[in-house]
Amino acid sequence: MKQFISVNDVNDINALAAKALAYKANPLVDARLGANKRIGLLFLNPSLRTRLSTQIAAKNLGMEAIVFNVDKEGWALEFEEGAIMSGNTVEHIKDAGPILGQYFDILCIRTFPSLKNREDDYSEMFINQFIKYAGVPVVSLESATLHPLQSLTDIVTIKEQLLATPLNKKPKIVLTWAPHIKPLPQCVANSFAQWVNAWSEAEFVITHPQDYELAEQFTKGATITHDQDAALKDADFVYVKNWSTYSDYGKVYENDPGWMLTEEKLKATNNARVMHCLPVRRNVELSDEVLDSPHSLVTKQAGNRVWAAQAVLSELLKA
Amino acid sequence: MKQFISVNDVNDINALAAKALAYKANPLVDARLGANKRIGLLFLNPSLRTRLSTQIAAKNLGMEAIVFNVDKEGWALEFEEGAIMSGNTVEHIKDAGPILGQYFDILCIRTFPSLKNREDDYSEMFINQFIKYAGVPVVSLESATLHPLQSLTDIVTIKEQLLATPLNKKPKIVLTWAPHIKPLPQCVANSFAQWVNAWSEAEFVITHPQDYELAEQFTKGATITHDQDAALKDADFVYVKNWSTYSDYGKVYENDPGWMLTEEKLKATNNARVMHCLPVRRNVELSDEVLDSPHSLVTKQAGNRVWAAQAVLSELLKA
Amino acid sequence: MKQFISVNDVNDINALAAKALAYKANPLVDARLGANKRIGLLFLNPSLRTRLSTQIAAKNLGMEAIVFNVDKEGWALEFEEGAIMSGNTVEHIKDAGPILGQYFDILCIRTFPSLKNREDDYSEMFINQFIKYAGVPVVSLESATLHPLQSLTDIVTIKEQLLATPLNKKPKIVLTWAPHIKPLPQCVANSFAQWVNAWSEAEFVITHPQDYELAEQFTKGATITHDQDAALKDADFVYVKNWSTYSDYGKVYENDPGWMLTEEKLKATNNARVMHCLPVRRNVELSDEVLDSPHSLVTKQAGNRVWAAQAVLSELLKA
Repeated sequence: MKQFISVNDVNDINALAAKALAYKANPLVDARLGANKRIGLLFLNPSLRTRLSTQIAAKNLGMEAIVFNVDKEGWALEFEEGAIMSGNTVEHIKDAGPILGQYFDILCIRTFPSLKNREDDYSEMFINQFIKYAGVPVVSLESATLHPLQSLTDIVTIKEQLLATPLNKKPKIVLTWAPHIKPLPQCVANSFAQWVNAWSEAEFVITHPQDYELAEQFTKGATITHDQDAALKDADFVYVKNWSTYSDYGKVYENDPGWMLTEEKLKATNNARVMHCLPVRRNVELSDEVLDSPHSLVTKQAGNRVWAAQAVLSELLKA
Repeated sequence: MKQFISVNDVNDINALAAKALAYKANPLVDARLGANKRIGLLFLNPSLRTRLSTQIAAKNLGMEAIVFNVDKEGWALEFEEGAIMSGNTVEHIKDAGPILGQYFDILCIRTFPSLKNREDDYSEMFINQFIKYAGVPVVSLESATLHPLQSLTDIVTIKEQLLATPLNKKPKIVLTWAPHIKPLPQCVANSFAQWVNAWSEAEFVITHPQDYELAEQFTKGATITHDQDAALKDADFVYVKNWSTYSDYGKVYENDPGWMLTEEKLKATNNARVMHCLPVRRNVELSDEVLDSPHSLVTKQAGNRVWAAQAVLSELLKA
Repeated sequence: MKQFISVNDVNDINALAAKALAYKANPLVDARLGANKRIGLLFLNPSLRTRLSTQIAAKNLGMEAIVFNVDKEGWALEFEEGAIMSGNTVEHIKDAGPILGQYFDILCIRTFPSLKNREDDYSEMFINQFIKYAGVPVVSLESATLHPLQSLTDIVTIKEQLLATPLNKKPKIVLTWAPHIKPLPQCVANSFAQWVNAWSEAEFVITHPQDYELAEQFTKGATITHDQDAALKDADFVYVKNWSTYSDYGKVYENDPGWMLTEEKLKATNNARVMHCLPVRRNVELSDEVLDSPHSLVTKQAGNRVWAAQAVLSELLKA
């Protein structure tokens, strides 16, 4: 593995997920693999799970991890080629990137979309410029359109469940839109769709209100419906997530609380386990009764973030 | 020890203080005790001494310490059960707590009172919810009403002085209110009162202007007077601290500079040593002449924060 | 070495630069030198290179490095003797300094000038008060008027070039003012001038528009001219930097883009290599064509920050 930006950087999803579960069973088995290696965790946006889990994963591999909140501890970076920097940006990625690449063996970066201009966000200029200039392997801690460490965790969590309680058929996985009060990125949903499609070991259904379609480049292969009830029928896993509109980009049209997942709705499923990347707006996206029920995998899922990150860093260190 | 939230978590104050002084004499004697253990230091409010001393204490025990400024690096947490999260809070402690408990072996948290609603603050909902959901030992880095790491340090500092210069009687300890420009929590004063009362090896007097009483649950056992001069007479230790009003909660009624401790006032004492938790507003709470005199223990006291924290973490690791 | 605040703390510049280059060749040769020593990196202002390079240098020497953003994680410090602290400052350096000195073996601090009052800034009260009260060796991570870790790096980078491509004469080094959109400190330019003059192995020319003179205490010994073209003639190294006015203090009078260094201007030089401390405003201070050309040393220069810091910390540890 040369970098970890999307599922396209992964040769064998099942092998990578198995590696994550092996680290879960034995966190310190490779405690010397990253000795004298340094990883930089750069945040242009806030983070809880992603930061802590990646930091812990790095330490488990013996790496020195340094967190740098670029937005708060540093200054605004410029990503546009040829910019005349007479505005608010203080340093160009063309200068910062190669220097960070000298300081660190692996660089991880989180950078959110603006949600103002779809073409800009979907060009992934920020992370692409970062990769172009860093000169060392780059790991996405969530970019404008994708969140691959989350998605690998999601596959790991599903596989872990299937190993404990095998099904005699392909699992039915449903990604359902949920209400929220603010316009959110499409990253987690895009990325989950991309990974489940690439994994191809599930029946995969996406359900959302009209006007909330995701980018076809990520969803292609999934069944897409606006009928949540039909989608949930016989589901084995329900992944709940809000995202903002894609066509008329970055808007919140609809906040129909009817889309919130409830225990009542779960009755149509095959005793489905419920997933969410967190943070979750309780009683807006998901009801307390679901989150506090045995159906919920969200705590296990978040715990698995460590092992997914550790598997990825391990692959990069071995490359 | 299962947690460290108040003096009620301590079996033997003298033994714990002795342990702290033993670490002061030999900081690295237990440098392997916390190997492969991870401690999370979570701040919902700013900190200097508490953060650095706890971080250093953890490292002295071989633990990996990770600082996370929840308010600045993360987002606002919700603590209310059943909340419909359509407001400013982004993540519920019911979700964040168990995840942090998976990531860390010990969790430390600082959370200040609102000073708006006394019942809410004194219910200690934030730290109690945190304890309820974390599932691992929790250490208070100051909560809405108490600051036990500070108070243990205070006892350690007093004992250290008494060991160096024994008295032929119980020491007289006076906690005196001091002026300040802003409404401050009652935590340090409450907690000091709670610990000195539980320790029960001193004559303990609290003095403050009318309307500045503290919660009786913590002060019970102490002599309380509004006459500062009478209180200071023959004192061996004078603990200086401002706090805001308790009954008409969180107000500053009075800023009589006459309550500022001066060298002149110290003449009535038994050559008393002067303590303060810091930060201190010089020439408002305490005069330069006192702080810069040999009477002042404040630097030694702050230095002892490391050893108090190390004793507590050591007990938690051994439990 | 007892501290590192300016070139005056250095006995032998060449020996220190050689030590830095030796660490570049073998970063971990002294990996145990700082075992069980702790270094505090205190920032009153933001930083990227200085923070990361010093943190990495400390780790390479086996020290435990703790970063503390005083302005963001803590509170405002008071530096004025005798202050009545009824304003915005929360803690006096007289109290914070000795405590930090108890917590750390070496203290590093960054504190910018106000650019409002020249006498205040040039008195270097902040860092001097810090040194006075810390009681342990202090390293400047940039102070009101100087930036010695940058300047040592600059000398290291020049020497490295001269070792690779020796000249048959003293190198001609030109420090040239560049346009910027905001008033910047004079630190980097002052400090570079102070070091090059102390090093005394170069022909040293400073060029800037009228009214942009630097403090004579640092420039004395250099040739100073307002004619940039004349200055650049036959230059071997061109150091580009903006600074604000000194006499009518802290102003931006002039933004003549004619002062921006371009490839065209470099033609008059002896194929000069171009330096800048970064961050650089591209196409304001320096054109893309220069920064992206083989003339530019800025990435190498920034990389050398690690080795310069490591040489300094090593000297302090050995003292």
